[in-house]
Amino acid sequence: MMPRDLLERLTGLLGPAAVLAEGPDLEPYAVDWRKLFPGKPACVVRPSSAEQVAGIVRICREAGAAIVPQGGNTGLAGGAVPDASGTQVVLSLNRMAAIRNVDPVGLTLEAEAGCILKVAQDAAAAAGRLLPISLAAEGSATIGGVVAANAGGVNVLRYGMTRSLVLGLEVVLPDGTIANGLRRLRKDNAGYDWKQLFIGSEGTLGIVTAAILRLLPRPKHSVTALLSVVDPAAALRLLELAQDELGDQISAFELISATSMQLVAKHAGLKTPIAEGEWFVLIEAASSLAGLREAAEAMLGMAFEREIALDGVIAESGAQAAQLWALREHVTESEAREGKSVKHDVSVPLTEVPRFLHEAGEALAAGAPGTRVNAFGHLGDGNIHYNVLVDHGHDPNVVNRIVHDMVAAFGGSISAEHGIGQYRVGELARYRASTEMELARRLKRALDPESLLNPGKVLLP
Amino acid sequence: MMPRDLLERLTGLLGPAAVLAEGPDLEPYAVDWRKLFPGKPACVVRPSSAEQVAGIVRICREAGAAIVPQGGNTGLAGGAVPDASGTQVVLSLNRMAAIRNVDPVGLTLEAEAGCILKVAQDAAAAAGRLLPISLAAEGSATIGGVVAANAGGVNVLRYGMTRSLVLGLEVVLPDGTIANGLRRLRKDNAGYDWKQLFIGSEGTLGIVTAAILRLLPRPKHSVTALLSVVDPAAALRLLELAQDELGDQISAFELISATSMQLVAKHAGLKTPIAEGEWFVLIEAASSLAGLREAAEAMLGMAFEREIALDGVIAESGAQAAQLWALREHVTESEAREGKSVKHDVSVPLTEVPRFLHEAGEALAAGAPGTRVNAFGHLGDGNIHYNVLVDHGHDPNVVNRIVHDMVAAFGGSISAEHGIGQYRVGELARYRASTEMELARRLKRALDPESLLNPGKVLLP
Repeated sequence: MMPRDLLERLTGLLGPAAVLAEGPDLEPYAVDWRKLFPGKPACVVRPSSAEQVAGIVRICREAGAAIVPQGGNTGLAGGAVPDASGTQVVLSLNRMAAIRNVDPVGLTLEAEAGCILKVAQDAAAAAGRLLPISLAAEGSATIGGVVAANAGGVNVLRYGMTRSLVLGLEVVLPDGTIANGLRRLRKDNAGYDWKQLFIGSEGTLGIVTAAILRLLPRPKHSVTALLSVVDPAAALRLLELAQDELGDQISAFELISATSMQLVAKHAGLKTPIAEGEWFVLIEAASSLAGLREAAEAMLGMAFEREIALDGVIAESGAQAAQLWALREHVTESEAREGKSVKHDVSVPLTEVPRFLHEAGEALAAGAPGTRVNAFGHLGDGNIHYNVLVDHGHDPNVVNRIVHDMVAAFGGSISAEHGIGQYRVGELARYRASTEMELARRLKRALDPESLLNPGKVLLP
Repeated sequence: MMPRDLLERLTGLLGPAAVLAEGPDLEPYAVDWRKLFPGKPACVVRPSSAEQVAGIVRICREAGAAIVPQGGNTGLAGGAVPDASGTQVVLSLNRMAAIRNVDPVGLTLEAEAGCILKVAQDAAAAAGRLLPISLAAEGSATIGGVVAANAGGVNVLRYGMTRSLVLGLEVVLPDGTIANGLRRLRKDNAGYDWKQLFIGSEGTLGIVTAAILRLLPRPKHSVTALLSVVDPAAALRLLELAQDELGDQISAFELISATSMQLVAKHAGLKTPIAEGEWFVLIEAASSLAGLREAAEAMLGMAFEREIALDGVIAESGAQAAQLWALREHVTESEAREGKSVKHDVSVPLTEVPRFLHEAGEALAAGAPGTRVNAFGHLGDGNIHYNVLVDHGHDPNVVNRIVHDMVAAFGGSISAEHGIGQYRVGELARYRASTEMELARRLKRALDPESLLNPGKVLLP
């Protein structure tokens, strides 16, 4: 139960409209969108400024109430929802949604934490520039959430994770002070770059209230190609060729298994326009320079000549490119329609992907017979969404253990882009070296000794 | 004086050849290369493995002896040399110089901390790939130093600071444990990205012993152009045009003042091949795509047509490109030959550079009459080396105060790429907000409560 005086103090600070305490009002904030982690907030507070966020933190701290920061609530690891105790205060940033500044020459965009990613993308586009963070949830995800999660997405190969696009941050610390690092600078080596600590820490060390992001020139030309290959090793050879011929103009290099394509055909009614292979690769490249298409066509020619690719097509129009992307984008939904699956968001050293896929497949066939692997993802980053279709006879924990043990054996990561949240918090403790875990706990203790912020996420107490 | 038992224990761990304790042996390690910060080491230890580094840390910790990590000793802020007390142990990484792995498909390079940057660049080139960290000291600077300093250089505009190229780190912590984050992964959102804390912290939080760096495809084509413009505002308009026409293929956009060019003509005998302007811009772009040169020529045409540029030339050959670069590269040396100067490595929001240059010039004319400004640098990053030529009548501190006050007024940084070291440690405390300084101290205390590592650098005790 919510202590009455805490509610009164929060209402006194924010006004009654910004404090939600009734059951139905709380529902949208209580559970993640995949409905895996149903929680129960003590209340939801909706501040409109960093100063109000700081005030909330101070009040909650005095009351000993934990705070769960929440943005668009689109996370995949349950990192932004409260536990079921009914004692945690959800701090929603969604009223702090302003875009403060777009600078098309200095290539910066400043936005408040609650600004929807898509809105920020559009603001950059309106200024003729590109905010390259792009992911499925971009219509709901917020800048603060994207920063707190160090979001990935389809453009990481070229532009890096969100971290590489953050120039400045404003963060409310667990002691209720505001650390203002909103510097619009592309280079700043004056002292510790403390903002790095908050990027990707999922709201466990501080609450991001505003960010300055780096923009990029907007490429004028783009090319999208779909190719089929005989196996993941051939896909890697194709990546090497693409890197040689198109350089860093490649913005996406996605691997899609035949299983994924079959699911998409079955449930979304979408068919590949090329001859079947065991694996497919979707390549996108973009450039300010004309000559991109010629280079891509030449690359395709080489891929056939060297027998790297079995078949392939380059989109002739934006509409065709969208059709090719639709194949990739419908994989997750088609998988859900097929049935139950155990999902993994893993990365291994890029050149190990073929061997990983082979050995993980063998291990599942031996340890969880009857499961089917639906593997797809960002091969260019070594990041595979290695999902395993199961039926009622399969124990998800067994499947999970087999896959993550294999990831660990390959020196990989059990969360390439989705984060840890509460979903993988036990897994992280299991697989990460104790030295690293102790270092993480030391940082948590230094910034949040009372474990006020998002307790139980990323790190176990 | 060096306590005898400490020396004995270090010698016992490392063997006598790896411990230098005699005056002449210590000299190369005692002072920075600009000879601004003469120090006196208790001894110099030269470990050959991370385990030895950890052993040294544990021994020094028990003896209460401070450790100063040192790489190529090419830093510009005195961050890698000991104080004059004769009690600090210099830990040189220069025997740990191996390149462990180059992966041209996965685009990674793993090297030990003491590996010379140029050696790593060459190893990447031999594999057909690019390690884009490039700076004047690359023939002596080490990977560990470059990481610890978050080095900048001439390619930051396109490829980012060193931070954006670090995929994995191994760090020896002040408690003598080894944190091994040498993961060859391009994406890893599993837990806090603790390595970020050590990048750019100048050896005050941990000792970098090895790193995995990200490589890039090696562009096949490049183009170098020198243009003259009437003022820095025109240079900015040129940057906007270049971003529109060449996109992210621009790898350098350097501003050079007429004063700088005159110094280069006077002392290095190098003349610009184009008509004089008040300011010059050196642009380099590189791409895997043909068509780069045509795009650059078209851009130059537009720059003349729109009266952004006064004159300009595109290099016809690699030799001509090198001649254009030589103009830029001889600025620092020519300045030194001209006489005494007060140097500043500052950044301001990119679009504020023209106003900053104007107002700083005015402030110096008023507050330090007779000084001459030699401004040049990485305009594409908003980073200006704002050096002020002085004579005996000028107080360097007054000049420094005027420039840094102006930087602060523009929301800039007093160290864009050179770091803080001991050189700017007082300045940082003066200009950075107390909230940020307290946060930095909290991190230092959490990791190095006894201030064992590089005390007096970055943060005052």
